[in-house]
Amino acid sequence: MKAFRSGKPFSTGAVVEKPAKFLSKLEISGFKIKVKDVQIILTRRLAPDDIVLGLGEQLGGINRRGRKYITYCTDTPVHIPEQLSLYGAHPFIIIKGRINQGLFIDYAGEIIFDVGFTDKDFLEITITSTNLELYYWKEKLWQTIVTSYLELTGGVYVPPRWAFGYQQCRWSYPDAPKVTEIAGKFRQLGIPCDAIYLDIDYMDNYKVFTVDEQKFPEFKEFVGKMKKQGFHLIPIIDPGVKIEDGYQVYEEGKANHHFCTDINNEDFQAAVWPGLTHLPDFTRPETRKWWGELYDNFIEMGIEGFWNDMNEPAIFYTDYEKEKIFAQLQSAADAGKIKDINLIHLQWEIKNFHNNREDYRRIYHHPSPEQTVWHDDIHNLYGAKMALAFAEHVQEKYPERRFLIFSRSSYSGSQRYSGIWYGDNKSWWEHLEGNIKMLVNANLVGYFYSGADIGGFGDNCHSELMLRWLQLSVFSPLMRNHAAIGTRQQELWEFDQQTLNQSRNIIRLRYALLPWLYSQYLEYAGINKPLIRPLMWDFEDAQSADTEDQFIYGDGIMVAPIYHSNSRGRNVYLPESRWLAWNVRSWEERDMQILNPGNHYLECPLEKQLVFLRENTLIALQEPEEFVGQRNPDTLFITGLVTEQANLKILADQGSEPAYSGISVLEIDVENKNDYFIIKTKTVKKQQLPWKHVVCEIYDLNGNTNIIHKDI
Amino acid sequence: MKAFRSGKPFSTGAVVEKPAKFLSKLEISGFKIKVKDVQIILTRRLAPDDIVLGLGEQLGGINRRGRKYITYCTDTPVHIPEQLSLYGAHPFIIIKGRINQGLFIDYAGEIIFDVGFTDKDFLEITITSTNLELYYWKEKLWQTIVTSYLELTGGVYVPPRWAFGYQQCRWSYPDAPKVTEIAGKFRQLGIPCDAIYLDIDYMDNYKVFTVDEQKFPEFKEFVGKMKKQGFHLIPIIDPGVKIEDGYQVYEEGKANHHFCTDINNEDFQAAVWPGLTHLPDFTRPETRKWWGELYDNFIEMGIEGFWNDMNEPAIFYTDYEKEKIFAQLQSAADAGKIKDINLIHLQWEIKNFHNNREDYRRIYHHPSPEQTVWHDDIHNLYGAKMALAFAEHVQEKYPERRFLIFSRSSYSGSQRYSGIWYGDNKSWWEHLEGNIKMLVNANLVGYFYSGADIGGFGDNCHSELMLRWLQLSVFSPLMRNHAAIGTRQQELWEFDQQTLNQSRNIIRLRYALLPWLYSQYLEYAGINKPLIRPLMWDFEDAQSADTEDQFIYGDGIMVAPIYHSNSRGRNVYLPESRWLAWNVRSWEERDMQILNPGNHYLECPLEKQLVFLRENTLIALQEPEEFVGQRNPDTLFITGLVTEQANLKILADQGSEPAYSGISVLEIDVENKNDYFIIKTKTVKKQQLPWKHVVCEIYDLNGNTNIIHKDI
Repeated sequence: MKAFRSGKPFSTGAVVEKPAKFLSKLEISGFKIKVKDVQIILTRRLAPDDIVLGLGEQLGGINRRGRKYITYCTDTPVHIPEQLSLYGAHPFIIIKGRINQGLFIDYAGEIIFDVGFTDKDFLEITITSTNLELYYWKEKLWQTIVTSYLELTGGVYVPPRWAFGYQQCRWSYPDAPKVTEIAGKFRQLGIPCDAIYLDIDYMDNYKVFTVDEQKFPEFKEFVGKMKKQGFHLIPIIDPGVKIEDGYQVYEEGKANHHFCTDINNEDFQAAVWPGLTHLPDFTRPETRKWWGELYDNFIEMGIEGFWNDMNEPAIFYTDYEKEKIFAQLQSAADAGKIKDINLIHLQWEIKNFHNNREDYRRIYHHPSPEQTVWHDDIHNLYGAKMALAFAEHVQEKYPERRFLIFSRSSYSGSQRYSGIWYGDNKSWWEHLEGNIKMLVNANLVGYFYSGADIGGFGDNCHSELMLRWLQLSVFSPLMRNHAAIGTRQQELWEFDQQTLNQSRNIIRLRYALLPWLYSQYLEYAGINKPLIRPLMWDFEDAQSADTEDQFIYGDGIMVAPIYHSNSRGRNVYLPESRWLAWNVRSWEERDMQILNPGNHYLECPLEKQLVFLRENTLIALQEPEEFVGQRNPDTLFITGLVTEQANLKILADQGSEPAYSGISVLEIDVENKNDYFIIKTKTVKKQQLPWKHVVCEIYDLNGNTNIIHKDI
Repeated sequence: MKAFRSGKPFSTGAVVEKPAKFLSKLEISGFKIKVKDVQIILTRRLAPDDIVLGLGEQLGGINRRGRKYITYCTDTPVHIPEQLSLYGAHPFIIIKGRINQGLFIDYAGEIIFDVGFTDKDFLEITITSTNLELYYWKEKLWQTIVTSYLELTGGVYVPPRWAFGYQQCRWSYPDAPKVTEIAGKFRQLGIPCDAIYLDIDYMDNYKVFTVDEQKFPEFKEFVGKMKKQGFHLIPIIDPGVKIEDGYQVYEEGKANHHFCTDINNEDFQAAVWPGLTHLPDFTRPETRKWWGELYDNFIEMGIEGFWNDMNEPAIFYTDYEKEKIFAQLQSAADAGKIKDINLIHLQWEIKNFHNNREDYRRIYHHPSPEQTVWHDDIHNLYGAKMALAFAEHVQEKYPERRFLIFSRSSYSGSQRYSGIWYGDNKSWWEHLEGNIKMLVNANLVGYFYSGADIGGFGDNCHSELMLRWLQLSVFSPLMRNHAAIGTRQQELWEFDQQTLNQSRNIIRLRYALLPWLYSQYLEYAGINKPLIRPLMWDFEDAQSADTEDQFIYGDGIMVAPIYHSNSRGRNVYLPESRWLAWNVRSWEERDMQILNPGNHYLECPLEKQLVFLRENTLIALQEPEEFVGQRNPDTLFITGLVTEQANLKILADQGSEPAYSGISVLEIDVENKNDYFIIKTKTVKKQQLPWKHVVCEIYDLNGNTNIIHKDI
């Protein structure tokens, strides 16, 4: 890896330990580099077989060729192909080919990646600043570049264990009785669930860090009551602080200069849910400390998880833009020419209020008393730094605890202290398909703890879409059903009895797999290797590189979701080895089939889900709980197709202590001796393992099941 | 078939010869029928395996289950799943299952089809009127229902032969020099092309039936010059007539009461491209006659094709709505309260100007002096009746000629005198995928002559998308590249040399296949059997019913397009028989492969295209021309995999006389006698056939090519 520095870049914090030496002359083999006004343009020829990967949370495929992408965090409710930016910015790109190269452009303003769009044979990167740090890799294996990027930017966030449970959200469950009713439904219907979300309406007039006491009286008691039933309440946190005299957060922020300013050093005003607000300046260490401490009230009431929204930051409008319109209208009125107003034009002008680039250009940060930084240059840091405020605070104040925190906006590096969700998708089959690719793309930049709103946030969900989306989401670390106000109710009992029953089966499968899913997360996060990977990470053949509607989770589960309506099957590509195909009706009912490598058309009616386990790989299951840690079953089921030898390491912990601080290990070795199997177990901190017994269901090539019980 | 009549329906003209008897009591086996206020609601349980087909131009899959659809012709530039109406209305639906049923609800207002969306097990049809005619089928074969519907509604439009050539459009080629340049490029680069389009800017201030003489001086000469080079110029025709004193069309229309009115019997005003316009009342026979005659000027100048746009009818705004806003603004101004205006709300109000339902409810038609019909009740007829005006006129005035006419809006029945295109799609891979389904769905309601804007109308096209879209469009009867103002130029030479060369190969393949494609069109239109069909039309197995990304064209070509970026292959399902797979690089370079029935993963890099020809089916090719009829090659190449016996009937005609009036026939029989092949030819009107020789390239099961020359 080489590091370059140009100009006087703002230190984004993406890289934890900066290299000792930065080169000052930007030279990258194969790249033409042009400095033009205040832009740097990097151009490289792409060979026909080069594959371009990376860029994190962006629309489009796993192979990034054929599109443009812009890093400029954007609040957008419509994820359609012409959207060139989403909520996060991850300016890390890999060219996989005869020569494998990687670039991380550590600049938090706008960068345009034209990945063979304008000319299919060229990658052109336009950085809209000459102040930046740039890291460059050239490696024998492209995978090394990803791991090295994750090391450089500080590794991967690990959430609490309960955050791997199923979670239920809606904008909004309006009050405590409704939340109680939802919680009751889950338990009554036997659908496992670990968390219920509080969207914006729990607040008093959208004032951040308040609770509407009419809707949620005795909030602390309510949080405790819910937790006793196994539910974490997760409040939404928005950055905009309502301008309202007497409102404590506002008064403190104002008094202590915690807010971003405009060019006149007045606190900048932007309207969001609460009306006009100020935006905390998270580049200031004092502001982050202040903001972090604001969570304490919730934490003391028993809250253990938060989701940060609207932190691109989203702006509905500003008075700066509004005044321009009012002036136009007033002058038309004064001239008696109201009827000459071009209404269509007016409509466009008002529409452009939303997340107006001119507004972002009006904002200034003051990371230190001597420093003033133009927002447009560090726009992409806003959400990341907001999450950092929380992370720094809990690290300091609650060093013995692990919290759930995930964010809508993010920047390279924030994956070490926060997860993300993929924002305002819709109840569209296209978005279920996009979810497959997004999981891979998010994991390639270290956002293992991430996921889409299951069933879709906007638009109305259909029962079949919900079931297929749930099936995929068994393998999405963040597994959350969420829907927007005004859309069809999409809690799992809102469709029909069959959908309800199948939902329960799918979610129970998730909980059955949870020990393994969680263990794999810990293991892969620990070595900075993507948990969810494109096939080409593990397999070198051409079709693996081409397959974008399947992915690998952990040590060797191939996930091949159905993502078309009315589908009763799909084609699945299984590379290299043999695979044990599960035809899952429920965690208990799994028809097994051994498949050879190659292409298979497999039937998969709605009530079933296809899961593939690689030859000589083992996975573990346990009896599903209704919430994580409810009963801690003492038996672990191990299964796999073992033709030679297979090894499984299950990492377990309490799930609430700091990651990796209290891990116990159960290791299982299975050897196929042709006539019989040898099973060996090894443990580390055996006393802390929840399991007392293992039951191994091992398949051989003839499809015979061999069941071996063993005490640990 | 049974026919019902309820209330006093407006006669839509969809059905040419009405049945002698209409039942008055609506009773359909399996349907619950409820009359509620002024609505009729039909409900039917759907069995798990029932497939629902039909509804024509709508988004979604071939199997319609799991979505809602609304028939209310809508001008929409964003084809995303939440769009429940597009430009056409085809209220014909088929339930294919243990019992095959079909309904054609002949009502041209709003009908809501909830096809298992709200409850997956129920079809619910809400007709927003009790005045309607309804046709009901119950048939042993579901295919019979489709054919019977097409017979009932008068069959299928046949365009001139040249309209099967490649066509180039853009909004807009601004003037004669530009059109000349585009035409020159095609000939210079050897890319076949038969038509260039004139979008709205050819008109003088968007006044329909005018030509801007600055931009197109000596238009008649220009039309003739272009035709000599093999190009048809196709002007756009919009229905809105600019309100402008002295403008002849306006003056005539006004004087003769040709326009729709408002409730006060004043000519209704709506703004479209020309600003405020009046809308011709195409329900009036006199108005249709007048409008039809307006085309004469163009026809006399040599124009032979037209495309009707904006005929849902699209409305940008009306003064009715505008005045409401102005009044609001004025009263705010009068009260000195401009700054209290809620701009966000105002923006929504103005946005709703566009195609506002309230405006449609302000329009009235007067089909005869005694009759006043509310537009909202017959909204879906507007575009169909506009096309009818042309069809009636040319039938009367030019009975010996065939014209190209296609429309954006349509209604059941208009498929007998007009084609359609699928409107304002975008340069999205999703829309290429949607094009596959739309071709099938349009054909199932008889719009054989139809197609999407190749490369996408909105947004910016990428070279790979263009090539894959062109490949699909070889089998789209309307093969037109079109793009919106402000988007990237997408003429085929605007990308790179490789894209240009491959485009040429693809379009030359189209021209090579043209004799066969055209002949099949004539044949299928003649028997009211869809030319482009879902696999389930021809094959009864479950996977055929499930396959929505392939289709069958004519006697047995299976089309399986690539519709994902960066794809180097795809899975193809080949039912029942063996298939001859063409791996087409160009019409001359076709690697052949014989494939067994089943699922195949096939490589298909960008420079190739997959085409599958069913065992014992023959197709025909000829040396590609640069435009249809340029040279009339005298050799026809026949090819196919013949294991037993195969027969091919090629229908040929001048292509400009009335359909079926001058057909000559070449029939080829090939019999595999194990050691040798017997080839027989038969002809009808041999002298009129363009071909003198056939060259048969017949494959046997061993993959051997047998080349047999034969004079006709």
